[in-house]
Formats: sequence, C-alpha cells, structure tokens
Amino acid sequence: MSKAGGGNNGRGTNGSSLRLEMLELQDRYIATLDSDRLEAWPLLFVEDCLYEIIPKENYDQGLPAPVIRCDNRDMLHDRVISLRNANIYQPAIYRHFISGLTIVKHDAGQQDEVEMESSYLVINTSQIGESTVYQTGRYLDHVVRTEEGWRFKRKRVVYDTSRIQTLLAIPI
Amino acid sequence: MSKAGGGNNGRGTNGSSLRLEMLELQDRYIATLDSDRLEAWPLLFVEDCLYEIIPKENYDQGLPAPVIRCDNRDMLHDRVISLRNANIYQPAIYRHFISGLTIVKHDAGQQDEVEMESSYLVINTSQIGESTVYQTGRYLDHVVRTEEGWRFKRKRVVYDTSRIQTLLAIPI
Amino acid sequence: MSKAGGGNNGRGTNGSSLRLEMLELQDRYIATLDSDRLEAWPLLFVEDCLYEIIPKENYDQGLPAPVIRCDNRDMLHDRVISLRNANIYQPAIYRHFISGLTIVKHDAGQQDEVEMESSYLVINTSQIGESTVYQTGRYLDHVVRTEEGWRFKRKRVVYDTSRIQTLLAIPI
Repeated sequence: MSKAGGGNNGRGTNGSSLRLEMLELQDRYIATLDSDRLEAWPLLFVEDCLYEIIPKENYDQGLPAPVIRCDNRDMLHDRVISLRNANIYQPAIYRHFISGLTIVKHDAGQQDEVEMESSYLVINTSQIGESTVYQTGRYLDHVVRTEEGWRFKRKRVVYDTSRIQTLLAIPI
Repeated sequence: MSKAGGGNNGRGTNGSSLRLEMLELQDRYIATLDSDRLEAWPLLFVEDCLYEIIPKENYDQGLPAPVIRCDNRDMLHDRVISLRNANIYQPAIYRHFISGLTIVKHDAGQQDEVEMESSYLVINTSQIGESTVYQTGRYLDHVVRTEEGWRFKRKRVVYDTSRIQTLLAIPI
Repeated sequence: MSKAGGGNNGRGTNGSSLRLEMLELQDRYIATLDSDRLEAWPLLFVEDCLYEIIPKENYDQGLPAPVIRCDNRDMLHDRVISLRNANIYQPAIYRHFISGLTIVKHDAGQQDEVEMESSYLVINTSQIGESTVYQTGRYLDHVVRTEEGWRFKRKRVVYDTSRIQTLLAIPI
C-alpha cells in the first residue's frame, strides 16, 4: 500500500500509465451518463459496490448521511429502471466535466486497487434550451481491476451545490 | 475495423497512446479557437472535409438539417474571412472545455482513421466582463492521420443549447 | 530550445510523456486549491518564482499592470496566512477546471524547462449552495524540473472576467 506522490507509484503498472487508465475510466463513466446509456452505468461497478451521494456539508462534519445510498449493483439497476419509468417527458440534458484527478493510493498487491479523487461539474440544458451550471462536487472513488477492466468498488459523490430535489432525478 | 472497447484497440498505435494523441488534437483544436488564431483553424482539417453544426433535437430525430455546413476546407477559410470582416468591435471571449472523450472506432488499415466523441462546454465572457455558460454539446469526430499529423475529416458539432442567432458568429 | 509542434518535442522526455506530466502538474495544482490545502500551494513553486494575476484587457495591450504580484515563494506563504486569518466565516467553495493545454516551448538543456498555456474555468458555490461561473482565463506557465518534481517558476494568470474585488480573495 503506497501513498501516491510525484506520480511515480505502483508496481504492476507504472505511474503515468495508471493515471491514463484512471482518466479513461472517468471519461467512460461520464460518457455513459451523458449519452443516456443508463443501462450500461451499473456495469461500471462491481457487484458488491457502494454508490453514495452526500452533501459536502455533511461529509465535512463527518456525518455519514447520504441522500442516496446503493450498496450493491442490483440497486443501481433498479434505480435506472425507476428513472426510465418516471421520465415520461423528454428529459433534460446533462453534461459532466472532470478535472483535477489525483491518485491518493495505489495497492498493486493481490488485487490491483486505486483510490482517487476528482472534481466534477455538471451542466444542465433545460427543455427550452437554456444551459446553466447544475452542480459541482467531488468524486471519491475506490476502483479495482477486474477481468473486464477497471470497475468502481465505491463511488462517493460529495456535492457542493444544494439542489437536492432535482439531484434525485439522475445519477451523477 | 475494430470496435474500441476497454482501451486496448488499434494495431499501429496502442490504445493508450492513441488516446493521448486524440486528447492532444482536441486540446489543440480548442486552443486554436480560444487564442483567436482563427486563420489556423481550417488547417486542422483535411482539404476534403465536412464541418457541420446541428441542433441536438434535429440530430436525435435523424433530420440532417445542419445550421452550418462546410463541405471543404476553402469554405472554412471563407468563414474566417467573413468573421474577421464582421467583427469591427472588440469580440467577446470564448473558452472551450472538453471531457468524456470516447474512441468509438479505430481503423489502422491503409489509412489510420479514428471516430470519436466528446462533450464540450463553451463559456462566454461579454464585453462588460460577465462570464456565463454559452453552449454545451457533443463533438462527433472522424479524424485521419496525415503527414502533418492528425486532421479532421469530419467534425459534427451537435449542440444542446438553443442559441442559434449568436451561434453563427464563431466556430465551435 | 525547440518550438513544440506536432507533440513530438523534447529530448530527455518524449513529447507525449512530457505532456502527461504537465497535465498531472496542472491537476495537482487545482486539486491543491480546491481541496483547501492552501498551505501546500506555495510548495508547487520554486523559491525564486513569479506569480501574477493580470486582467486580459491589460495583458493584450502590453500593459504589465498585475492586480496581484508575488515575486518569491515567501510572498505566496504570506498570502495564505492572510487568507486564513481573514476567513473567519465558512468560505465559499471553488472548483477549477482546465482544458486546452498547449506546450509552447520545451528546453531540455541544462535545466529541463517548459512553457505552456491552458484555459481555466472556476465555478463558485456560495454559502447558500448556488453554483455559478466565477471566472475564466488563461494560465501562462513556465515550469522547471527540480529534484522534487516539476515546479512553477512563473505562473501568469490572465483572467477574462471582471470581478476584481472578489478575485483578491483566493489564489487562482
């Protein structure tokens, strides 16, 4: 278990190639959401996963009170089904942007595991075609290497913006 | 012709180095626009290119009704000349941000060709110094490797935001 | 001293790996600011550094009139101390996003040095939880390789948005 420093971490994978793989995983994650391929979203997680959405205020105070908590992949599937059933109208458009990715820890032991953080920004375009900042926050991710590639074991979405009502509508 | 999957695609170039080259091409594209080097913009395309700007609504319905369509590089040059002549006042400032790049197809056959998608965000700063979200959308790109490096053979800009009037002013 | 062209520049480091290192440096820079580790911010600079914030209007006219100018690392430390003392209330949240990184020059001679440019976007979330575009602009960076990794020798922040009053509050 090694703290990541100057980008030269990891055993099986060297630092910069690991970083590239993480950036690609994040890009695939947001592209899946933004191209409305919601059914493929749970497949980016392992079966025994944790997906949480937490207000920054709570998180900073050490209060583990997520507004959304799915502790296995089936719950993510169920969430997608509810969303598809609920959205009878043409849905609004969301676009995710990621920056500041930092690898916090890389354990290249028995199972290759990475902890990382990044900032996200979501822009929303309403049905009348107005685009505004919908939400910003941080992804706190724990990913593992599987036979199908890197998958999320834990994704903690800590959001800055207080818009809980609409937040419940879509995966972030 | 191979479908890109887990980032391990391509023959002549391996997956992660191809991905890096695509990211660099996108960064060069937006840097050319944002630093107002408009005359260099057409040079990022091959001569026999297609540049289109299409509203998402039309695109999703399969209606090929672009609001802008340039089907060769000379038309891009002409567009830049019109812009330079039209902009008698200090122009507004635009900044592009890209995320979620996904390589859809890589054909490393006779001519190296790549199809890719990414999300873009444009922020506009008005003459009085107010910055707001100007537009979001998707780039659907088809690029080819030439002797001068990667160039766009087709760039389809599918925009989410409905602001067609000002959209006509600048390349996206 | 070589002009960077098609991404194939540099001697000691090849082009794409240099580019990756620069992207990582920028991500570390913004992650340091956005995770409120302000005390670590000066450590990303060499001792004999220059940090300037300049309005785009002035910069374009060749007027060297920065609104902020720190010409050594101690001044950056002092700035952080003032900020910590001034912020008696819960501070607003800022998130930086970077795109369009372009390597302008790479001198792999006696000391490895790089000049680069990139666009930045800062989103601000107020205490009542509203997220808006706070500022956009360009980073004009001169970085050098040290024994601890890449460090900023000069960071010129040229901002588009006219909000000088609040600009003084946080490092960009």
